[in-house]
Order: sequence, then C-alpha cells, then structure tokens
Amino acid sequence: MGKTRERWLVDGMDEYLKRLSPHVLFECAWYKDQSALEEALKKESHCILLDPQGKMMGSVDFTDWLFSEIEKAGSRLSIAIGGPDGFSESIKQGKSLLSFSRMTFTHQLTRLVLLEQLFRAFEIRKGSGYHR
Amino acid sequence: MGKTRERWLVDGMDEYLKRLSPHVLFECAWYKDQSALEEALKKESHCILLDPQGKMMGSVDFTDWLFSEIEKAGSRLSIAIGGPDGFSESIKQGKSLLSFSRMTFTHQLTRLVLLEQLFRAFEIRKGSGYHR
Repeated sequence: MGKTRERWLVDGMDEYLKRLSPHVLFECAWYKDQSALEEALKKESHCILLDPQGKMMGSVDFTDWLFSEIEKAGSRLSIAIGGPDGFSESIKQGKSLLSFSRMTFTHQLTRLVLLEQLFRAFEIRKGSGYHR
Repeated sequence: MGKTRERWLVDGMDEYLKRLSPHVLFECAWYKDQSALEEALKKESHCILLDPQGKMMGSVDFTDWLFSEIEKAGSRLSIAIGGPDGFSESIKQGKSLLSFSRMTFTHQLTRLVLLEQLFRAFEIRKGSGYHR
C-alpha cells in the first residue's frame, strides 16, 4: 500500500531488484489501501501473504519453502505486504502466510527486507557465499 | 562490523538518527571483526546483544522491555549487532539477548531495522500515531 517515496528506499529496492533480475522477472504493484490490494489479490492464482499471523522461519527454511511455493505456483507467484493489522480472514483462506518478525516494520522497510530475503533465497539455492 | 558504505543505507540510517536525536544521544561505532567488537563490549557496563538466540517480541513489548533496560542501564546503554553466527558464549553471560527475526538479514539492513525499531519505541512511548 502506498508508493515508496523516500529516495534511499527506492535506491535500496532498486539495488535488490537489479540483483534479482538475472533470476526472476519481478514486478511491483502499489495499491492505495488494503481493500484495493485485497481486490487485486482475488485475481492472483497463487499468492503468499505477509501477515502477523504468518509462519516464521529461518532463511534456509524460507528458501526451501519459497521454491516449493514457486513450483506449486507454476509461472506466476505473488507476494503481498498487508497493513499492520494483516489481511482479512476471507482473503487468507487457502493462502500461504509468512511473517518476518513479531515486530512491526514500516511497509517500506518490509519491502526492502522482502527483496533482500528473496535475493538471499536465490543465493542460498545457488550455493553462493552470500549467506553463511 | 564493517562501516556502512551503500549510499542509500547511510541515508536511511541518517533519517532515523535525525528522528531519534530529540530523544536520545546516539553514537554508532564500527569494528573490523567479531573479536574486535567483543573486546570493545567488555568495557560496556550495560549491553543488549542482537543474537539469533535472542528473545523475539512484538514492537509494543519491545518498547516496554527497552525502557526497562534503559532504566537499569542508567545513563548509557549499548546495543550490539553481531555476525551471522551470533556472539560467543562468554560474552553473552549476563547480557540481554534480542532477535528481530528467525531470518538472517545483512548487518547493514539490521542496522536500519534496529534504528527504525528504536524510533518506533520512542513513538509508542510518546503515544504518537506512528505505530498503530
């Protein structure tokens, strides 16, 4: 929800999007509020929701889990960052829920952390030295 | 460990340091490796360690906990971010351990997340609308 405006966050996100670009075609979409986001999600066939009730896991387990989700999803997987109160019960039905932290981060920081974890997952999968 | 070099991270940290400045005198120190960091910590009287074995909590509980640590610490509280493997057992003796996530973040992102959580804690304490 809400476009990223702070220059430093845009630059940080661009850095990870650039690093992800050899691995994956990544698209970001912004919605003006939670209900617009949830409306858009109804059209997505396979979707991970970042939600306070989501599963927490270490980066290596996340990597295994992410790639199994990618496999299940086929060609297109969506990952959605909701508001601080999380998603409505109806939208959560049958979706995979993920949580990075028991703490609340700003949406903006969550975007950055998500992109870094996605990049980290690809590096773990490759067996590079990025994650140790 | 290691100075922050990426421009966007320096700018992001500066943003939160600026926002924290009315509340607290904040100093950052960098060390070249884990042992130099642990050596420096021996001189600190009261210290919170960010460690994979640390306690995880929500932002409101973190706020209460942080302010009780500040009170115990008197005038000076240190918070240290260790390497991905955490701190040595000997340095952890009697220290408070904190963890943001079961996931591994880069040191750099952890700095940013820490500053945002500290700022959030001061805002929660003030009762402002920042955290909801």
